[in-house]
Amino acid sequence: MKLYGFGPAASAQRVRIFLAEKGLDVPTEQLNVRDDDQFAAAFTAMNPFHCVPFLELDDGTVIAESVSICRYLEELHPEPALFGRTAVERAIIDMWLRRFELDGLVPMVHAVRNHVPMFAGKVVPGTRTDLPQLPAMVTRGKEMMEIFLGRVEPHIARNEFVAGPEFTIADITGFFAVRLTRVLEMDIAARYPAVAAWFAKVSARPTFQL
Amino acid sequence: MKLYGFGPAASAQRVRIFLAEKGLDVPTEQLNVRDDDQFAAAFTAMNPFHCVPFLELDDGTVIAESVSICRYLEELHPEPALFGRTAVERAIIDMWLRRFELDGLVPMVHAVRNHVPMFAGKVVPGTRTDLPQLPAMVTRGKEMMEIFLGRVEPHIARNEFVAGPEFTIADITGFFAVRLTRVLEMDIAARYPAVAAWFAKVSARPTFQL
Repeated sequence: MKLYGFGPAASAQRVRIFLAEKGLDVPTEQLNVRDDDQFAAAFTAMNPFHCVPFLELDDGTVIAESVSICRYLEELHPEPALFGRTAVERAIIDMWLRRFELDGLVPMVHAVRNHVPMFAGKVVPGTRTDLPQLPAMVTRGKEMMEIFLGRVEPHIARNEFVAGPEFTIADITGFFAVRLTRVLEMDIAARYPAVAAWFAKVSARPTFQL
Repeated sequence: MKLYGFGPAASAQRVRIFLAEKGLDVPTEQLNVRDDDQFAAAFTAMNPFHCVPFLELDDGTVIAESVSICRYLEELHPEPALFGRTAVERAIIDMWLRRFELDGLVPMVHAVRNHVPMFAGKVVPGTRTDLPQLPAMVTRGKEMMEIFLGRVEPHIARNEFVAGPEFTIADITGFFAVRLTRVLEMDIAARYPAVAAWFAKVSARPTFQL
């Protein structure tokens, strides 16, 4: 198998951290998505959604979507388990993964893409368009993140990690959701101390030194 | 186990269709989320994110998030398989599920909540706030859905279902993403005939008669 990624891209970093936590090494080709490598015909054929990362299997099958790649690798290499070991564990981890992704990361990603000058013309992942950056998307993204963090704070205060006592895929997703608050200059430490403490703890893991 | 849902809520309908496709019957209590039942203390304790559906297990464990509930039930009742039977099948289905959810359903949900008068004060799922409905979220949601449908059209034209030859959980999510285009009066049939044909086919399944 071969992984196509791009060092600075958050989705590619999610998979890199997952691989490091699992102790896996997958041959990787770097596509410079800032130079639009992913729109070349060969890569468009592999992933018409024009995002990195994507994983090409030996038979030519392509798995895109960072979490789908991680699920696949977890099935091939079950330990250490990052998606859970029992049906209930897997469901609880999946629930927290979805909450951090849908309620935290997605609003933040759209806020950042509609705010940071580098993303002008790229407000929708995997596109080059003339869609304008919308300040309302930034405002709403921050508002949604505040609601989300307010809900997560008491949960994190009672748990070692996002989905309970063990480090899981949900912590990887959570790290990227919270990291983006910095890009938008949201100061969360004072209002969400448990979230900030968890973020500092996760950030210190050797696998998170990107 | 006991499922807490609300008939008209799309997320609850996703699980109902999944149960029907699996031939499963789970005792269900209806919470009228329009009357804010889900904010009552007992239900807040079960799901502090205040969304339906959620599944209470016999030991009191609560699994919220519609897809996480479905994943759990699939593990207990593997056939008919709606998440795939092999690691590769599961990864490909998960990839299409994520694409339809992140690129299609999520932008549509936010567009609808920022547009339809019924959702005033409820623009963020599971909240009652004074956040205003933002027209820019409607515009951007439609734009994102057009980009998504343009990418999906050639894929659907070559495949029987969203993730390939078989009906899967990704078709359930896809149905709700495309159904919301009607609420926003997007006329997609002319521009995306393969998507429209797939939508008609899925809509005709006995389990989709909601």
